Amino acid sequence: MDSPEKLLQTMKEALEQELQEQLKDLNISPYQLYHEMLAYHMGWVGEGAGPSATGKRIRPILLLLCTAASGGDWQQALPAAAAVEFVHNFSLIHDDIEDKSEYRRGRLTVWAKWGLSQGVNAGDALFTISHLAIHRLSKSYPPEIVLHASRLLLETCLRLTQGQYLDISFETQPEISLDDYLVMIEGKTAALFATCTHLGSLLGRCDPTCQNQFQQFGRSLGLAFQIIDDLLGIWGDESLIGKSTASDLVSGKKTYPVLLGLRSGGSFAKRWRQGNIQPEEVYDLAKSLEAEGIRAATQAEALRLTQQALAELSAAQPHGIAAEALYRLTNQMSRRIH
Amino acid sequence: MDSPEKLLQTMKEALEQELQEQLKDLNISPYQLYHEMLAYHMGWVGEGAGPSATGKRIRPILLLLCTAASGGDWQQALPAAAAVEFVHNFSLIHDDIEDKSEYRRGRLTVWAKWGLSQGVNAGDALFTISHLAIHRLSKSYPPEIVLHASRLLLETCLRLTQGQYLDISFETQPEISLDDYLVMIEGKTAALFATCTHLGSLLGRCDPTCQNQFQQFGRSLGLAFQIIDDLLGIWGDESLIGKSTASDLVSGKKTYPVLLGLRSGGSFAKRWRQGNIQPEEVYDLAKSLEAEGIRAATQAEALRLTQQALAELSAAQPHGIAAEALYRLTNQMSRRIH
Repeated sequence: MDSPEKLLQTMKEALEQELQEQLKDLNISPYQLYHEMLAYHMGWVGEGAGPSATGKRIRPILLLLCTAASGGDWQQALPAAAAVEFVHNFSLIHDDIEDKSEYRRGRLTVWAKWGLSQGVNAGDALFTISHLAIHRLSKSYPPEIVLHASRLLLETCLRLTQGQYLDISFETQPEISLDDYLVMIEGKTAALFATCTHLGSLLGRCDPTCQNQFQQFGRSLGLAFQIIDDLLGIWGDESLIGKSTASDLVSGKKTYPVLLGLRSGGSFAKRWRQGNIQPEEVYDLAKSLEAEGIRAATQAEALRLTQQALAELSAAQPHGIAAEALYRLTNQMSRRIH
Repeated sequence: MDSPEKLLQTMKEALEQELQEQLKDLNISPYQLYHEMLAYHMGWVGEGAGPSATGKRIRPILLLLCTAASGGDWQQALPAAAAVEFVHNFSLIHDDIEDKSEYRRGRLTVWAKWGLSQGVNAGDALFTISHLAIHRLSKSYPPEIVLHASRLLLETCLRLTQGQYLDISFETQPEISLDDYLVMIEGKTAALFATCTHLGSLLGRCDPTCQNQFQQFGRSLGLAFQIIDDLLGIWGDESLIGKSTASDLVSGKKTYPVLLGLRSGGSFAKRWRQGNIQPEEVYDLAKSLEAEGIRAATQAEALRLTQQALAELSAAQPHGIAAEALYRLTNQMSRRIH
């Protein structure tokens, strides 16, 4: 591999193959439709299938890069990469049910297409498949390492459900603090990112200190990722159009910039407290929030976290082309908001 | 231990303690309500808490008895017993959502009490906790055994989701065959019973042949259990009263006796095909189904499976008081329908 681009391309192809491999034995009678639901959600079949439906697979790629950057063979870590992507996708299927979202990436969600019951069950299936995937590490790693990896992923899933519990609870609370919000995204977003980089370095056979540095890097990157997502949920191109519920302002989500806006107590806060925001108000409200300095403050926090991530990555002393790819990926993330 | 009763009592107390132990660290700020949802579902807190709310814990007790009957120390197997009970309870929480059941054992279900979103998430939490419990086997067993146990339980969860997929699909199919039904209950009920007896004997350090015999025993017992449940769903005391949806005839479930009745094509089949059955019809329809010989045929099948289970148990050559308890438990099961 002579360039980060080539490495990323090779990893993405190998990952997609590994993911499909995990599901292929399930495509048997009388379970073809069960298999189809999972393959549809993963973006492989059905209307709109293809790269725009699969998502960016950022979590598993992060894991593989950390394995390679710790001097390990990333191909051996592929089952773990598949596992974290399945965990992410299980949580998307259940999130869509919990948020009553009928569309994801322009396609019907599993529950909207096949009903609530099949949706809950399809999520349970992907959850199971993710943890079964970890067992495939046994081809290349001793039982102690496989058990360690399995435990890390399960502990992360517990954090995910704790974060999700808070997120659901926040919906019915009129106001929450910025601290409450940060605890929630630690569980809901940062924990899985931290586990990707932790697992990656564990499977690259790093020592515990180095694993800890990689884990810190993933946590900061995950927090930055979430705050950038929050920013795009208000000022992203799709959100500003105001045609649908693409804006977090319409769905009423208490995201980072919303909480900053409420704390600053300006005209945005007044409007928010009067009740549901309509799509036609979205453009002006986003502009007024920006005028109050909230967009800049959100950007600054995302940049601060990105810088922190870069410092932690550097402390982990990653090497080779994979290290280059990790630095680039981290920098690219904050570039989404400029 | 000088009697099966004493052994069962000691096991039940130790199990309940082990189950509570797994959840206790979760009772921390800001997650107290999250913990309460899980503790409520397990039958420990909230209105109606106590023995009638916990259920019989038949699966974990079966597991512990198989460990003891294979000559192992059942106390070492407690984490696995907790794991299978958590799996069972995760599936109950999600089943109640999928069936829109508002009550279970006379108490509000989790989703009915805290909403659909928290219900889905609480099920995910118990699912995670069940697999984390398996890792606690590491106190007494080498990594290879812990990994084996973990894989067995995950494979069972996959079968559960396959069985559940079929069960949901059957709801919208006008008629299904007895074979379809048997494939469904293999996944939905028998797989977890088979894994209890399999895990129990694995943790009792049986050889693979003996593990296989224990597993077969659990499978037959699980099938018998389901068919007896189906029988009680029509001719059980609560079902016959017809005051609520306690009867499977009202909920329209295509259970074993219903499918036998449809196949025999008598007056029951004619009425069923005309559409939803009302609570006030339940008593007469159950009697007419009985007059057609369907109750006797269902009983005969449950007895046949119980006999098969006894023969398989005997082939596994269980020993001690635990063996006595296993024979008794198997015999008691079919006594529920006389």
